[in-house]
Amino acid sequence: MSAHWTREPCQAPSQPHADRARARQAQLTKPAGSLGRLERLAIDLAALQRTDAPTAARAPIIVFAGDHGVTARGVSAYPSEVTVEMLRNFARGGAAIAVLARELGATLSVVDAGTLAREPVEGVVTDKPVCGTRDFTANSAMTRGECDFALDAGRRAVARAAGEGADIVLLGEMGIGNTTAAAAIACALLGVAPEAIVGDGTGVDAAGRARKAAVIGEALARHRLAGADALAVLEAVGGLEIAALAGAMIAAAHAGLPVLVDGFIASAAALVAVRANPGVAPWLVYSHRSAERGHVFVLRALDADPILDLSLRLGEGSGAALALPLVRLACALHNRMATFAEAAVSGPAAP
Amino acid sequence: MSAHWTREPCQAPSQPHADRARARQAQLTKPAGSLGRLERLAIDLAALQRTDAPTAARAPIIVFAGDHGVTARGVSAYPSEVTVEMLRNFARGGAAIAVLARELGATLSVVDAGTLAREPVEGVVTDKPVCGTRDFTANSAMTRGECDFALDAGRRAVARAAGEGADIVLLGEMGIGNTTAAAAIACALLGVAPEAIVGDGTGVDAAGRARKAAVIGEALARHRLAGADALAVLEAVGGLEIAALAGAMIAAAHAGLPVLVDGFIASAAALVAVRANPGVAPWLVYSHRSAERGHVFVLRALDADPILDLSLRLGEGSGAALALPLVRLACALHNRMATFAEAAVSGPAAP
Repeated sequence: MSAHWTREPCQAPSQPHADRARARQAQLTKPAGSLGRLERLAIDLAALQRTDAPTAARAPIIVFAGDHGVTARGVSAYPSEVTVEMLRNFARGGAAIAVLARELGATLSVVDAGTLAREPVEGVVTDKPVCGTRDFTANSAMTRGECDFALDAGRRAVARAAGEGADIVLLGEMGIGNTTAAAAIACALLGVAPEAIVGDGTGVDAAGRARKAAVIGEALARHRLAGADALAVLEAVGGLEIAALAGAMIAAAHAGLPVLVDGFIASAAALVAVRANPGVAPWLVYSHRSAERGHVFVLRALDADPILDLSLRLGEGSGAALALPLVRLACALHNRMATFAEAAVSGPAAP
Repeated sequence: MSAHWTREPCQAPSQPHADRARARQAQLTKPAGSLGRLERLAIDLAALQRTDAPTAARAPIIVFAGDHGVTARGVSAYPSEVTVEMLRNFARGGAAIAVLARELGATLSVVDAGTLAREPVEGVVTDKPVCGTRDFTANSAMTRGECDFALDAGRRAVARAAGEGADIVLLGEMGIGNTTAAAAIACALLGVAPEAIVGDGTGVDAAGRARKAAVIGEALARHRLAGADALAVLEAVGGLEIAALAGAMIAAAHAGLPVLVDGFIASAAALVAVRANPGVAPWLVYSHRSAERGHVFVLRALDADPILDLSLRLGEGSGAALALPLVRLACALHNRMATFAEAAVSGPAAP
C-alpha cells in the first residue's frame, strides 16, 4: 500500500454552473445578496455538483474513531476506554450524532480506524492497521505503512458511501486524546506555538492545557517537523482517525463529492489533505467554528468561512450534521423561489 | 380599543423545569457544555414550555406586512408597490419564506397589517386600521387608535396560531421602507445617532444611507422622543407591521408561547415590546444577527445571543425559519440522547 493516490489531481468545480447559479440568485424575488452566506453555499454546490439544481438530500455521515498513545501523558479528561464505549453508543443510537442522523434522515457509518478495541464492535466497520497510535512524544505516532493504511481506510469509506448514493458527505471523528494530536498537526503545519493552540478538549483545566502544550512541544522538538511534508507530519504526530479523515477528503475530491467538514479535528485533517493536495480545497465546506481554541488558526489557514458558530466542541460530526439543514434549505431556496419575472414583482426603483 | 392589555403581566419561565433540564444536559453522553448554544436553547425551552421534553414541532410562521409614508422621502431602493406584490408572492409560494415554510412543514400566515392594498389579497388575512402610515417627518406615523389597532392585530394573529396548536411561533415582516422606521425606533429608544444605525435596507447606496439618516434626524427633532414611552415612539415613527409584531410578542408572552424573532425589524419590535412590558423578554429567542447595520445595537440592548450569523438581510421571517431546524435538533438531542448511565460510558477520569 502506498499513498501515491493522494497526490492525484482532483476534479475542478464547474465555472459555467457557478455563473448560471449566480445569475439565478440575482433574479430571485429578494434584494440582491440578502440571503448572505446561503447564496454562496448554493452557488458553490451547483459548481461542485455540476448541476443547476444543487441538493444535499443524500448526505451520509461517516465517523472515524481512533485511540492515541499520547493519552498516557494525561492529556485528556476522559480515559481511553471511552472511545470504544462511545462506538457502542453510536451503534446503539444514543450518541449525539446518532440522534442527529435519525432526525436528518441521514445514514450513519462508524469506522474503527484504529481504536484499542480487540474485537469488532457490532454495527461498526473495523478497518484498521493497528490498535491505537504510539505515544508521539517517544515515537512516531504511526509507521508509514499504518498511516497509508488509515488514509486508504478513509478512501474505502467514501467509496462505500458514494456507492450507495451521496450528494454530499459529512465527516466526523471520535478519539480520546485527539485534540492533542490535531493541535500538534496544526502547530507543525502552521508554525504556531503550542500554548497558542491547545484548548480544553473534552474538558481539561488550565493545568491540563499546560500539560498538552508541553507534550506537543516535546513532540515537535523530537520529530523536527519544521517545513515537513503534510503526510510526514500526520505520520509523526497525527492519529489513525485523522489520517482516515484526510484520506476520505482527498477521495471525495477525486470522486467529485462535496464534503461538509466538522470541527477542530476534522479541520486539522482538512489542513493535511489540502497541503498534501491543494485541489482538495474547493470540495470542503466548513460547517462550524468550534469553541476549541486552535480551530480559529486552522480555519484561517484554510480560508474557511464556517456556516455556524454555536460554541460546539463535541466532534462526532455533530457540527456538520447541525449545518446540514441550512445547506438543504440553501438548495431549496435556490431551486424553488420565484424569479422577479415569474412573480411579477418590481425590481429596484430607477435611481 | 386601547393598549392597556399590553401592560398585563406575562407568564414566568419555570425554574424547576430549567433546573431539571440543566441536570439532564449534564448526564447526556457528551463532555459537559460541548453542545454549546444548543444546550441553553433546550434548557430555555423546557422552562418556557414547562416540560421535560421541549419541542418545536408545531412552529407556525406569521408575517405582518405594512407600508410606510416615509418612502416618499426616497429611503428605499424599491417602490412601495413591492410590498403588495410580495404579499401575492408569499401567498402563491414563490417567496423565500414560503419555500422555507414548505420545507419545514410549518404553516405560513400572512397578515396585511397596513399595506397600501385597497382590496384584500387572496390568501392573506387583512387586519388593518389604515392603508399605510403617514410620512413621519411631517406627522405622527400612526394615530393612537391606529397603533392600538395594529398592536391588537398582532394579538389576534397569535391567538389564531395558538388556537391551531403551536409550540413556538416565528414572527417576521415585509414592508418597503421599514428599515427606516425600525432604525428610527432604535435611535429613539437607545439614544444612538441615526448615522450609526442606518444600513443598506434592501440595497440603497451611501447617498441613500445619508438620506435615511437625515430623515430619521428630522423625525427625532420633530417628535421630541427623548425619554418617551416605547409605545409613544412606536406611534410616532414606527410602522403598522412593527406594531403588529410588538403586539404579537406581548400576546405570545401572555399565552406562554415562545417566540423565534427574525432580524432587524422584528428585533426593533422586540425592543418596543420589552420596554413596554419587561416580562416579555424571556419569551423571545433571537434567531440571527443580520447584516443590517443597526441590528447589533438592538441585539445588545436586548442582551440577545442570536443563533445564526449568516449575513442575512431579507426579513419575511426567513432568519427565524432558518434557525428553526437548530431549535428542533436542540430539542431532539435533549430528549433522545442516552445518559452516561444508560449507555455505560465512563465519565471523566478522576483528576
